Amino acid sequence: MENSISMNGGEGPNSYSQNSKILKEAADQAKVFISESVIEILELQKDLKVFSIADYGCSVGPNTFSSVDTIIQAVQNKYKTQAPELKIPQFLVFFNDHVINDFNTLFRTLPSGRQYMAAGVPGSFLGPLFPKSSINLMHSAFSLHWLSRVPEEGSLTWNKDIISYPRSSNQVIEAFRAQFFSDIESFFKARSAELAPVGLLVVLLPVRPNGTHSSDSRIAHIIKCLSYTLADMVQEGLISEDLVDSFNVPLFFPSASEVKEVVISNSHLNIERVEELHFGVNPTSPGYIQFCKMHVRAGLEGMFCKHFGQNLTDDIFDRYHEKLEDFCKTSCSTDLAKTDNVLLLVLRNDAC
Amino acid sequence: MENSISMNGGEGPNSYSQNSKILKEAADQAKVFISESVIEILELQKDLKVFSIADYGCSVGPNTFSSVDTIIQAVQNKYKTQAPELKIPQFLVFFNDHVINDFNTLFRTLPSGRQYMAAGVPGSFLGPLFPKSSINLMHSAFSLHWLSRVPEEGSLTWNKDIISYPRSSNQVIEAFRAQFFSDIESFFKARSAELAPVGLLVVLLPVRPNGTHSSDSRIAHIIKCLSYTLADMVQEGLISEDLVDSFNVPLFFPSASEVKEVVISNSHLNIERVEELHFGVNPTSPGYIQFCKMHVRAGLEGMFCKHFGQNLTDDIFDRYHEKLEDFCKTSCSTDLAKTDNVLLLVLRNDAC
Repeated sequence: MENSISMNGGEGPNSYSQNSKILKEAADQAKVFISESVIEILELQKDLKVFSIADYGCSVGPNTFSSVDTIIQAVQNKYKTQAPELKIPQFLVFFNDHVINDFNTLFRTLPSGRQYMAAGVPGSFLGPLFPKSSINLMHSAFSLHWLSRVPEEGSLTWNKDIISYPRSSNQVIEAFRAQFFSDIESFFKARSAELAPVGLLVVLLPVRPNGTHSSDSRIAHIIKCLSYTLADMVQEGLISEDLVDSFNVPLFFPSASEVKEVVISNSHLNIERVEELHFGVNPTSPGYIQFCKMHVRAGLEGMFCKHFGQNLTDDIFDRYHEKLEDFCKTSCSTDLAKTDNVLLLVLRNDAC
Repeated sequence: MENSISMNGGEGPNSYSQNSKILKEAADQAKVFISESVIEILELQKDLKVFSIADYGCSVGPNTFSSVDTIIQAVQNKYKTQAPELKIPQFLVFFNDHVINDFNTLFRTLPSGRQYMAAGVPGSFLGPLFPKSSINLMHSAFSLHWLSRVPEEGSLTWNKDIISYPRSSNQVIEAFRAQFFSDIESFFKARSAELAPVGLLVVLLPVRPNGTHSSDSRIAHIIKCLSYTLADMVQEGLISEDLVDSFNVPLFFPSASEVKEVVISNSHLNIERVEELHFGVNPTSPGYIQFCKMHVRAGLEGMFCKHFGQNLTDDIFDRYHEKLEDFCKTSCSTDLAKTDNVLLLVLRNDAC
């Protein structure tokens, strides 16, 4: 059962576009490093007429537009300051996401004064999407932790009433982990073929701290709180046990070192820089809890609707707040290592 | 008031994708000429790694997919038969239409075994959409007769209760005509900048016969029949007169010679071949009348809904059949010159 994940489309109160502020905070931190890296690492090319940028897993904005602006401004600045004799190329930006992504909303909300030509590219980023050696700057933020499928291990009910892997059996944790590494290996393999010579690949994703157990991810626990809501609803006879048993959220949170190892194992790529980004947010504050609820809903609602129907989904997320509040205030929560983000800047290894 | 026209999205009974069969017939005729022209006219390039194709005004398929397949097969055949020593490039296809086009449906119905990478490009084709000299083969079918705006001439009610230009005042006819020529001049100007050296531009559009008056277009009359339905509904008090007075369908049907003149006036382009395509359909047959009704609905419903609302629109198109039947059986209809299609094959003029 392959999953094509898409964030909530449109621009309503539960939409991804309205609820992606914490990602914006992380993306804002990342921008500083992206700009610096473009200035320091990216090599300018003579006679390059078109500078192609691709954002893999763009969702519906506005974060993708903001990242693209940062990249283009940095490239333009580099041309102006380091090679004023060269003509700045035209920019062509490819916005990629699953075919079920709401590209209509993405296109309707494209910034009107943009300095680039825009195209949408539907399809899984685990396989090839572009001609070989054709993309000058690749970007992917907050996408790689989505698994391409729920690992099933031969049975729909193998993970029973638990919808995510933390504190599950070793078999469950290992299956989520293996799926994640299989997916990102495919991602880096496909990108290494598409990356232009002297091109730059920028990856931003949420990670748990190095050295912690796969299970110890705070955000994975936050998602797992939905299991408790579902258990209540099964007890009240609102949802069948089978329906809950057959549902899992395809997410995994690796550590930064684990991701680095995957890139290092790809002989066509070289890691140029790694930055760990931390949030200064208090994980027990009401604002943070409300934010988590809205953000988890924006990211997961589509998947819940498909499995449980819209009416049950509304009920599930209405009840979720209480479970989330309980969890965030327990020592179990505050003891857990924070989930932060890692930014990797990767170049093509033209020596190999 | 600029109009962004989009065909009915989705795949339901009134959708464009289900009601574009006559266009398919015309496109099938066109395919033979396109294949021949690729074989005879297109110049193969050594070391071309990516062959870029753009379909301008693609709507939601399936005709656009079929046209793209024809083009790719012809190019592949040409490589195999005329230059077997050259490596066939990868194909990158850009599907362009207005930002309000249903790209979600387009993407979801992309052929699964396709031999190309696909991208959607939102925006008006009257302006630049791609980098300079970047597209090897351009295609536009049944799109250029849509005007970018209803010519208003200073008053919303200038064309009163008539929703199209046939047999209107000279001022009205001239305004539709002028808007059409302004639009296609912009189209060819933008394309001449984007066309790669030795690239080919293929344009297919409905035309009235050469030498006939601008007003004498059979298809424009068929659309005008909707005015009679609207007039009935005004009389019955179902629609306000003002609402009808402020509505016009932004379409114009030129003659083939008029279109040729526009291309000739563009010093960057050369017409390589012109083909007039005729249908063998009987315009008084019930099948044809039913087809016209469904096709006009698929093309115009979105615009009617926006102006009159969904309920009134259902009523309008339910009543339209009778008016259409009356018109198609009159001598006025059979005397009118048939609307056929013209196919233009245009190259870049690299001498200028």
